[in-house]
Amino acid sequence: MENFRFYVPTDVRFGKDRLKDELADVLNLYGKTVLLAYGGGSIKKNGLYDQVLSLMKDNQNKVVELSGIEPNPRVETVDRGIALCREHQVDVILAVGGGSTIDCTKVIAAGFYAEEPAWELVSKRKGFNGPALPLVTVLTLAATGSEMNGGAVITNLATNQKLGVGGPSVLPKVSFLDPQNTYTVPAYQTAAGSADILSHLFENYFKKTVGADVQDSVSEGLMRTVIKNCPTALKTPDDYDARANLMWASSLALNGLTGNGKSGAWSCHPMEHELSAFYDITHGIGLAILTPRWMKYVLSEETVSKFSQFAENVWGIKEQDEFVAAKKGIQAVYDFFKACGIPMTLPEVGINEEKLSLMAEQAVKHSTIETDAYMPLSKEDVVKIYQDCMTESSYY
Amino acid sequence: MENFRFYVPTDVRFGKDRLKDELADVLNLYGKTVLLAYGGGSIKKNGLYDQVLSLMKDNQNKVVELSGIEPNPRVETVDRGIALCREHQVDVILAVGGGSTIDCTKVIAAGFYAEEPAWELVSKRKGFNGPALPLVTVLTLAATGSEMNGGAVITNLATNQKLGVGGPSVLPKVSFLDPQNTYTVPAYQTAAGSADILSHLFENYFKKTVGADVQDSVSEGLMRTVIKNCPTALKTPDDYDARANLMWASSLALNGLTGNGKSGAWSCHPMEHELSAFYDITHGIGLAILTPRWMKYVLSEETVSKFSQFAENVWGIKEQDEFVAAKKGIQAVYDFFKACGIPMTLPEVGINEEKLSLMAEQAVKHSTIETDAYMPLSKEDVVKIYQDCMTESSYY
Repeated sequence: MENFRFYVPTDVRFGKDRLKDELADVLNLYGKTVLLAYGGGSIKKNGLYDQVLSLMKDNQNKVVELSGIEPNPRVETVDRGIALCREHQVDVILAVGGGSTIDCTKVIAAGFYAEEPAWELVSKRKGFNGPALPLVTVLTLAATGSEMNGGAVITNLATNQKLGVGGPSVLPKVSFLDPQNTYTVPAYQTAAGSADILSHLFENYFKKTVGADVQDSVSEGLMRTVIKNCPTALKTPDDYDARANLMWASSLALNGLTGNGKSGAWSCHPMEHELSAFYDITHGIGLAILTPRWMKYVLSEETVSKFSQFAENVWGIKEQDEFVAAKKGIQAVYDFFKACGIPMTLPEVGINEEKLSLMAEQAVKHSTIETDAYMPLSKEDVVKIYQDCMTESSYY
Repeated sequence: MENFRFYVPTDVRFGKDRLKDELADVLNLYGKTVLLAYGGGSIKKNGLYDQVLSLMKDNQNKVVELSGIEPNPRVETVDRGIALCREHQVDVILAVGGGSTIDCTKVIAAGFYAEEPAWELVSKRKGFNGPALPLVTVLTLAATGSEMNGGAVITNLATNQKLGVGGPSVLPKVSFLDPQNTYTVPAYQTAAGSADILSHLFENYFKKTVGADVQDSVSEGLMRTVIKNCPTALKTPDDYDARANLMWASSLALNGLTGNGKSGAWSCHPMEHELSAFYDITHGIGLAILTPRWMKYVLSEETVSKFSQFAENVWGIKEQDEFVAAKKGIQAVYDFFKACGIPMTLPEVGINEEKLSLMAEQAVKHSTIETDAYMPLSKEDVVKIYQDCMTESSYY
């Protein structure tokens, strides 16, 4: 196990109907002028927008709205948010949404105090350690874990870049996690969110560091939780416990619990970031498509033990031959995503062969997968993995 | 899953050799006058005392020492610590030790600002939400999880009481977790600490709340981690990864991760607290002796599914008949503790039949196991469980 710091001071308020009694007190810790940030308006359909506005009205808040934050939040929206916060001298940001909304507000929170324009902050990737506006979140999608970490991913469509940035100063102060707020998430987004959670777990699980049993066994447990509860949520969207388990798993999958103490670069995320930077596809869907192909590609004498451990502890697959177990485990990943209704080829999400080489080049350029990944990946490796995503595939 | 709050702002600095570069900066956040609290002097043997003192000397700290904190810390020691802090106007407490030392300093931290004597603070069980001295810890034993939670257990031998108390204001600000500091922990204490970790996991796992898959699957993973790594640490005391996994598991087993979101009282801890209140035995040993007997006692049609899940997911025991699986799982718990060198009967730790009835009465009186436990336990039930601990036992 590597040395690590674990410091996650986000105050998580998990469960049913807490906003009514707690939101005002939380906001009042920071001030009366609130930037209310949200996405495409789903919160207007399910009543959450009205509820939050009404609570803030009763609390005599001055509310400034930033709406229309994109699924892959764009740097222009960050700049717009910073300008609003400055114009109205906002005291606290309230992000109501999923990871995209929360990510966007993190960069607004830090950017408020910065001299550089937002894209410079993101592309310099210095980390947010200085002052930042306090951020409170109301989560509406179980996926990115942004509600309990300091990370953010911002897209610049002008340069086809999607870059990660973050730091401790933009960790949400308080996050309200009410599983009921995810009842109206459509099946496709529920599946994509679950794929995102699983991918965070996979990325941390498949790293070079050995001997991190706590991290790996916690990961295995969270994987089993998602694999059990995602199908239930798809079938019965208002199953409270299924939604609760997905929601809490999303936060724990990426708050350091499964990754801190292990070193190395992630593999699938850098490859996916290029897909959604170039084609604006749903992040979790891209990850689901790539992951089993990546697993298949890196399976070798060197990695087979870990993959057979994965097959046994996560999927209950036990075989005499480690390679057989490993392959069945990888097939199980593919079959699981497919059964969740995820389109499992790139053409199905509108991506053809045209830019594979360019995207592969960028994936290697924007990350350290060529040197630090579980199995280092060159541009050529990435092209092969992308190509394997062009058609349906299976081991058996 | 029940509603819960998860708020654990302890800054964990995990890994090798961090004190040297980080201790002074951490202490300087709070001030120069430090109460250095420790136990029976094992830190003087292994060099940690000298290292910490030397670092504080270089940092020009004024150091006040509270030594001799007992394995079951006594209220008189808490009072002594409070008096020292007041006399020297201490700015920050540095606890170097295991759970007992840390627990003791938590009540000192809160007691410093309280008007009541320490025992009144503890026995009123109001919870520590008000002001408290900042607490920094250097952990030397993987066991109680006190390094990452707000709980403390204090013993009053005059009244034969051992009571839990706590609150968010006494959560350690920073905890240094260096697995190397546990290399010199003797085998008996290593086993007892592992039993304590497992017991925290068992207590949270076997609660009435259903549908808390995240909590339960994380628990299962941490159990597997302890079951794998404790024997390694016993055999090779300086195996870094084994010690690291036990240490990090100890923190995560009782920081809310496996318990928050589930309701109900713990079962074995209240029964054990009486054993160590009356006989001053090692807490983890008492838990190890009680746990398999308690499991056997509460196994029924109502609980068999959970116990067979436990057998399969933790011990890899899969059987057609749930009861057979459950019994094998319980036997595995017993056999594991025995193989770790733990004396598995009460007479072996100096407890005879004499006070069983009195202790059972107190266990019920000092807790809510009669109403809120996984399976409610009356005084008579507790007597039977104690009695089953008088001799070696097995299912097969």
